[in-house]
Amino acid sequence: MKKLLNDPLKAASELVDGLVDYYNGSVEQVSPGAIALTNISDDKVALLVGGGTGHEPIYHGLIGEGMADGAACGDIFAAPPPNVILDATKAVNRGNGVLYLYGNYSGDVMNFKIASQLAAAEGIRVETVLIWDDVASAPPTEKEKRRGIAGLIPIVKLAGAAADRAENLDELVELVTNARDNTRSVGMALAPGSIPATGKPTFELDEDSIGVGMGIHGEQGVGVEKMMSADELAIKMVDLVLADDLPIGEGDEVLVFTNSLGSTTMMECLIVLKKVKALLVEKGVNIYDVLLGPMVTCQEMAGISLSLTKMNDTLKPLWDAPCSSLGYTKLGK
Amino acid sequence: MKKLLNDPLKAASELVDGLVDYYNGSVEQVSPGAIALTNISDDKVALLVGGGTGHEPIYHGLIGEGMADGAACGDIFAAPPPNVILDATKAVNRGNGVLYLYGNYSGDVMNFKIASQLAAAEGIRVETVLIWDDVASAPPTEKEKRRGIAGLIPIVKLAGAAADRAENLDELVELVTNARDNTRSVGMALAPGSIPATGKPTFELDEDSIGVGMGIHGEQGVGVEKMMSADELAIKMVDLVLADDLPIGEGDEVLVFTNSLGSTTMMECLIVLKKVKALLVEKGVNIYDVLLGPMVTCQEMAGISLSLTKMNDTLKPLWDAPCSSLGYTKLGK
Repeated sequence: MKKLLNDPLKAASELVDGLVDYYNGSVEQVSPGAIALTNISDDKVALLVGGGTGHEPIYHGLIGEGMADGAACGDIFAAPPPNVILDATKAVNRGNGVLYLYGNYSGDVMNFKIASQLAAAEGIRVETVLIWDDVASAPPTEKEKRRGIAGLIPIVKLAGAAADRAENLDELVELVTNARDNTRSVGMALAPGSIPATGKPTFELDEDSIGVGMGIHGEQGVGVEKMMSADELAIKMVDLVLADDLPIGEGDEVLVFTNSLGSTTMMECLIVLKKVKALLVEKGVNIYDVLLGPMVTCQEMAGISLSLTKMNDTLKPLWDAPCSSLGYTKLGK
Repeated sequence: MKKLLNDPLKAASELVDGLVDYYNGSVEQVSPGAIALTNISDDKVALLVGGGTGHEPIYHGLIGEGMADGAACGDIFAAPPPNVILDATKAVNRGNGVLYLYGNYSGDVMNFKIASQLAAAEGIRVETVLIWDDVASAPPTEKEKRRGIAGLIPIVKLAGAAADRAENLDELVELVTNARDNTRSVGMALAPGSIPATGKPTFELDEDSIGVGMGIHGEQGVGVEKMMSADELAIKMVDLVLADDLPIGEGDEVLVFTNSLGSTTMMECLIVLKKVKALLVEKGVNIYDVLLGPMVTCQEMAGISLSLTKMNDTLKPLWDAPCSSLGYTKLGK
């Protein structure tokens, strides 16, 4: 696997340097792997995201105006260490507390929990909302076993707008929980990405197979099936999401997000979107807005995911607010 | 090559349907392969882009607020037919003429020229600015032989802002020519994409080779060299662009754009950006803004390009204006 690297073992730290360069003055590195906005206002309730690197633009690419205030990231596919999370926490805290918002992976959960205890010892109040949007990873009765996947893009965008408005940390937790609880995703794997340090594939999958509900690192999903057409795949994804415990039906409004896991082209995402939209419209579901593109990736992995966020009167003004980041930018409505 | 398609021969038309779905009401299909904004204001000088599909988000993904008004696209990697361009021309024209802005490829040049004659016969004034930013494709004395590559993203964004301000078509031509003449790019190929209809690679390149200055379809560049590190590649790209006829030196301000040709990860783009920025800063060049990501692609091709746009007092307010599209969105400054 040909990759543009200098030292594969330094890829994670070099890309964070590049990220600071991308943000061109609006962001600073506050710890190895942790970056924060430089202009966080004095009374703001802060929003911190994080996780492993190698999934760009998440997570560090989600900080910006109307998005997260900071991000704490680990090495490639590895949770950030507690001290890095603590440094990021201190950098974004303005005295009104910090919300940790990240995907439900055991390493991340452990380290963010330790960091929240360290922060508490320094007098910083921290609350946590875990992202667990992947319907294929556990039944709806066991949400705490579900993984966080591409649904984190609409959730972080909604949370960023919420953090700009929330009077206090409790209100922010409530708004972000609303966004999280109204978001469901499912992912399909076609081919693995490669691990930068070794060049080895992140998982194995037959040439004519598709991993239905497979996670972005190849974690187990619903099962492995024969390769199928874009329309068949769209039907399968819509069915899996609509069969979950969140009722989405006639008259409801949703955000639709077709995410590329890396090398799957925008052409394919658009062809899948066409069928997804037709299926939703057929059921009387209205499309509030659409997101599309490689935003939650695993290197050059091939695959696609579908996320639906059911809108309500609380979430709509949060979605309509402008935001700007490497990962997602939107003009205000 | 596993791809999410229904019928490979219908990929181009299905993706245009998906694009209309993405734009969720703000865009309509006006001819097979041609789309236009639905809310173009009455007195606007119109901006039309176009070219082959398969390079998403260009070209159809560049229409939107502060961007192009319409796009005329052909089949995969094929120029749009003259009648499709004409339909798009009529759809965007508001009586003040239409600027054609597209990459300098012979098929596109021929068909857009025929379309402009057909439009003239219907009383629509058309002017053309060709994009020829690729410094590796011909010497600076033969710009009309140069290809248009990723520089078209900053050029179309600047042109979109210009079209919102221009009093007439001549003024728009002048502003867009300013943007075009201040933009230079060079691309590097690591591995081919695949042709959707056949699954065959778009070109051949050895496992340990890199195509320096190679075009996005594998067109000849400066030469083929041994695979190199991200830093070495960044040095090569900056050297090639700065050696061209556009003087960029101490005190100058530039837009920097590191574009992924498809499957090259954002991680790699960020690592290359880090070195590019260091090299520019070392020469006293100031970074006005940064763009990064897969915006001009060739399916899942691996590779990267660097584009620099030298800013001036005319271009800065055009760049600072907000814009929104599938391909590029930016909040106003």
